[in-house]
Amino acid sequence: MYRTNTCGELNMHNTGQDVILCGWVQKSRDLGGMTFVDLRDRYGITQLVFNMETNKEICEKARKLGREFVVQAIGKVRERSNKNLKMSTGDIEIEVNELNILNRSEIPPFTIEEETDGGEELRMKYRYLDLRRTTVKNNILLRHKVSQEVRKYMDSIGFIEVETPILIKSTPEGARDFVVPSRMQPGTFYALPQSPQTLKQLLMVAGFDKYFQIVKCFRDEDLRADRQPEFSQIDCEMSFVERDDILNTFEGLARYLFKQIKGIEFKEPFLRISYCEAMEFYGTDKPDLRFGMRFTDLSGSVKGHNFAVFDTSEYIGGICSENCSEYTRKQIDELTEFVKRPQIGAKGLIYLRYNVDGTLKSSVDKFYSQEDLKKWADIMNAKPGDLILVLAGDKKKTLTALSELRLEMGNRLGLRTKDKFFPLWIVDFPLLEWDEELKRFYAMHHPFTSPVPEDLPLMTTDPGKVRANAYDLVINGVEIGGGSIRIHDAAVQKSMFKVLGFSDEEANEQFGFLLNAFKFGAPPHGGIAFGFDRLVAMFGGQDSIRDFIAFPKNNSGRDVMLDTPSQISNKQLDELQLIIGGKNKKKLL
Amino acid sequence: MYRTNTCGELNMHNTGQDVILCGWVQKSRDLGGMTFVDLRDRYGITQLVFNMETNKEICEKARKLGREFVVQAIGKVRERSNKNLKMSTGDIEIEVNELNILNRSEIPPFTIEEETDGGEELRMKYRYLDLRRTTVKNNILLRHKVSQEVRKYMDSIGFIEVETPILIKSTPEGARDFVVPSRMQPGTFYALPQSPQTLKQLLMVAGFDKYFQIVKCFRDEDLRADRQPEFSQIDCEMSFVERDDILNTFEGLARYLFKQIKGIEFKEPFLRISYCEAMEFYGTDKPDLRFGMRFTDLSGSVKGHNFAVFDTSEYIGGICSENCSEYTRKQIDELTEFVKRPQIGAKGLIYLRYNVDGTLKSSVDKFYSQEDLKKWADIMNAKPGDLILVLAGDKKKTLTALSELRLEMGNRLGLRTKDKFFPLWIVDFPLLEWDEELKRFYAMHHPFTSPVPEDLPLMTTDPGKVRANAYDLVINGVEIGGGSIRIHDAAVQKSMFKVLGFSDEEANEQFGFLLNAFKFGAPPHGGIAFGFDRLVAMFGGQDSIRDFIAFPKNNSGRDVMLDTPSQISNKQLDELQLIIGGKNKKKLL
Repeated sequence: MYRTNTCGELNMHNTGQDVILCGWVQKSRDLGGMTFVDLRDRYGITQLVFNMETNKEICEKARKLGREFVVQAIGKVRERSNKNLKMSTGDIEIEVNELNILNRSEIPPFTIEEETDGGEELRMKYRYLDLRRTTVKNNILLRHKVSQEVRKYMDSIGFIEVETPILIKSTPEGARDFVVPSRMQPGTFYALPQSPQTLKQLLMVAGFDKYFQIVKCFRDEDLRADRQPEFSQIDCEMSFVERDDILNTFEGLARYLFKQIKGIEFKEPFLRISYCEAMEFYGTDKPDLRFGMRFTDLSGSVKGHNFAVFDTSEYIGGICSENCSEYTRKQIDELTEFVKRPQIGAKGLIYLRYNVDGTLKSSVDKFYSQEDLKKWADIMNAKPGDLILVLAGDKKKTLTALSELRLEMGNRLGLRTKDKFFPLWIVDFPLLEWDEELKRFYAMHHPFTSPVPEDLPLMTTDPGKVRANAYDLVINGVEIGGGSIRIHDAAVQKSMFKVLGFSDEEANEQFGFLLNAFKFGAPPHGGIAFGFDRLVAMFGGQDSIRDFIAFPKNNSGRDVMLDTPSQISNKQLDELQLIIGGKNKKKLL
Repeated sequence: MYRTNTCGELNMHNTGQDVILCGWVQKSRDLGGMTFVDLRDRYGITQLVFNMETNKEICEKARKLGREFVVQAIGKVRERSNKNLKMSTGDIEIEVNELNILNRSEIPPFTIEEETDGGEELRMKYRYLDLRRTTVKNNILLRHKVSQEVRKYMDSIGFIEVETPILIKSTPEGARDFVVPSRMQPGTFYALPQSPQTLKQLLMVAGFDKYFQIVKCFRDEDLRADRQPEFSQIDCEMSFVERDDILNTFEGLARYLFKQIKGIEFKEPFLRISYCEAMEFYGTDKPDLRFGMRFTDLSGSVKGHNFAVFDTSEYIGGICSENCSEYTRKQIDELTEFVKRPQIGAKGLIYLRYNVDGTLKSSVDKFYSQEDLKKWADIMNAKPGDLILVLAGDKKKTLTALSELRLEMGNRLGLRTKDKFFPLWIVDFPLLEWDEELKRFYAMHHPFTSPVPEDLPLMTTDPGKVRANAYDLVINGVEIGGGSIRIHDAAVQKSMFKVLGFSDEEANEQFGFLLNAFKFGAPPHGGIAFGFDRLVAMFGGQDSIRDFIAFPKNNSGRDVMLDTPSQISNKQLDELQLIIGGKNKKKLL
């Protein structure tokens, strides 16, 4: 062993001990007679001290150490005269009597500090240096901790982790697959799983009863910001359960994780609201409930005053921002600009100040009397000092715009703090989505999602109205997990395929193995999957998942450190009997 | 919830309770007045009883249940009159008063019993039914348990699990890569990792200090029996360590697993023997030390008696089988046939019986006197009652043949029992292997394996003699894990590439990102990887890994259940700008 201790553990109890430490040179300060070196490893930083008077030779050696040199220091622990209270090792230092350079380092291309001067691209190229930074390192340590706790909890409640294969079969439904050419059977391909959905259902058919897996999934999609072509999920499935069994089980997991990771205990059961309610009151199926500002539908209350915008609108909705009646003209203008941005698309913003003195002032005073405005305020449960913001127009678009406005107000009012968490379940999603272009229904979740039992008759009469027995776990406006009760009945599955416009043949070609399996005694079952990267990022208090993945890819799906994807040899192409077409055309030898 | 209890937990303490069970019909017996149904779930089997007299309707329903129907049974626990001591639930049965068929089943293509009548191919096609069999199910449960324990232990000693990417870069060195065409950058490819070797080394450069991962690895090789194109390993790496630190750490893991999984505690430290010793005494680098029969080299002791076979042999070696002196002529002939099989390739077998009465009888009596033979016996430490078996010829081939003979004798004498375990470390492997055809050296482990420090000078003078700082964990003749101390010094790495015949350019092209990383302060480090499938199979007492993998592939790399690899659509090919060549030629649209 190169060391007796780590750089994060020595303190006053160790003074007088002879120790050996190893690590990287974080920085060194040469104060003439004395040289101080901060030595860093995974566990912390310990100060090394070298004295020109007592040991000239070694002190001179220390002076020549560059940043990020790897060294072994042998010496004695002693109390510092100048203590650093911010560090766990800040009470002591090591008086070094032997210094060995284990490896040298070129000057790193960016600073290895909490805040670095390195840009995104540079950090990714030298990810192994970026990972030395405390913030990034701690994210990866957090990820380990969360995965350990997930497994501990799932095991404790009888779930078993089963590894499902990575080389599976391509199915055209859903997102685009990554494929893997087979050399043994040229012209054929494996696909990488977008999720182990069908495999976990087969495990239920196999009787495994309670399955989970922290598993890599793959999607070959044009990458939106903060999407990764490979990502991890906590994938779960249970048999002989109904919706509430699943919600209760995984609410248990979420509570356990919040307790273990954040020290937070939720007293109340997680709120459960329907998709319709979520859309109606928050304009989104991922509402951030760290704060209120529920929408009030004013459509039935404010028309008929010759204000054309309202009179011609399908929907008029408002939010009430407490204690904002004194917003300046400039602030209101900013909000107006905000909702008029093309990505939000509202035509304008109507405000109503409920002044502290009880008077009311709105941008539509021309059309509404004080009494009329008072009525609005009452409907909205506003009180003096509040500011009411109203949007109007096409219902769907207006709900979405109002949702963005609500979040913006949440941000402005500091109501979306990273240390507050509000988990809730969204239930009763629509089963199907209508594709106007292709004139067909799509499964909103996937084609194995069960309808809500009481909606079954609608499958033939009004499929668009059928609710899915599906659910999402939403925390702070982010979808952390989602799942459904699956169809285990062959007749229901058949009617589902029919609604989706799959012929028996197509259904068989794509899902034959699953449909076949279901003939041999499929139990009632359902499951859920959590975005693991997202979950960890949430616990880490960050929006981006990238720094919670050790070696992420960039927005073009490239690993700039490994420099991949890259060309392969002609020999490899020949073995696979593949020819590259297009403008990169390469001939088969 | 569909049930109150599982089929594996009810006993005499529960009599009189009203319960609801769910599961699959294992079998049913119709005894006229009474019908018995064995209901099975993951946890066990519980007997349901239906009485024609007390409840005719439900009894008739039960009589119509087919094998593997999924049912829900509501009833009361009562003591059985005819107890089954072999089952944990054998004291009780359920008097059913409500029976719901949750799903029907076609007649399964093979019996769902411990021993099935289904052949390999059929079992694989209907793997979800095969997994219902107790033996296979228990293997998968065991796998879960081992993975949990590995993680628990590694976490407890400060290792962190880091997920490394699956979409990485193809490197021509080593086995053949599976590749993944990139759609965003047509003509380029990702590769699936054969192991996260370079990535875990980068994590050490990043300062992660102690890393592990249970991770999928991929090799596109023509499959030997019991190899899988995707397999799992426990991948580990540590910094600031020397060889013995690694061996001690992972001996700790092995001991912990044996204790937790098998209840076995090893008193002695694991034996550590060199590669040379292993070859010399057991003819293999994976010796099965559940039994002795070490080789004795007779080359220096038995020549010069006009027995041409010996006199012209490079090597003469023998094993001593205790208490086998009374082996019959027929048994000896069988052994002779065994060693003469082409895959073993010995020319013949010489035996020497040390009879109980002290006399000696050999197949070469013509050339050796009783005194000569007594001398053999003494060299071999044989005692009256033992049988000495000797092979002679070219050294390398004879050692291998003798190794096979030793294992065969171990089998015949019942010395290779599944409940005995003998773990040992093999150390000091050769660093390089000479390829006679290509006239070049190959890295026996991989090109980052460090030479044993004292052999460094030989790198330039006699590279073939250099020992690697590498090690294998061998248990019962199977290589369970292997690893090495890595090169962290740029100069040593350079000389290694030189010996392997890599130009600077080639080295840079293939491993540039690693060599570049090493410029920024690589710590001394080393690691190990365990074959996870193999490890679990060993704990499960089986030689084949296939039934310890939920959804394995067959020897042609096919998943016959999913029916993959398979064709993909022209649209997919077009998006990837790929053309299929060879006899399966497909044109780009």
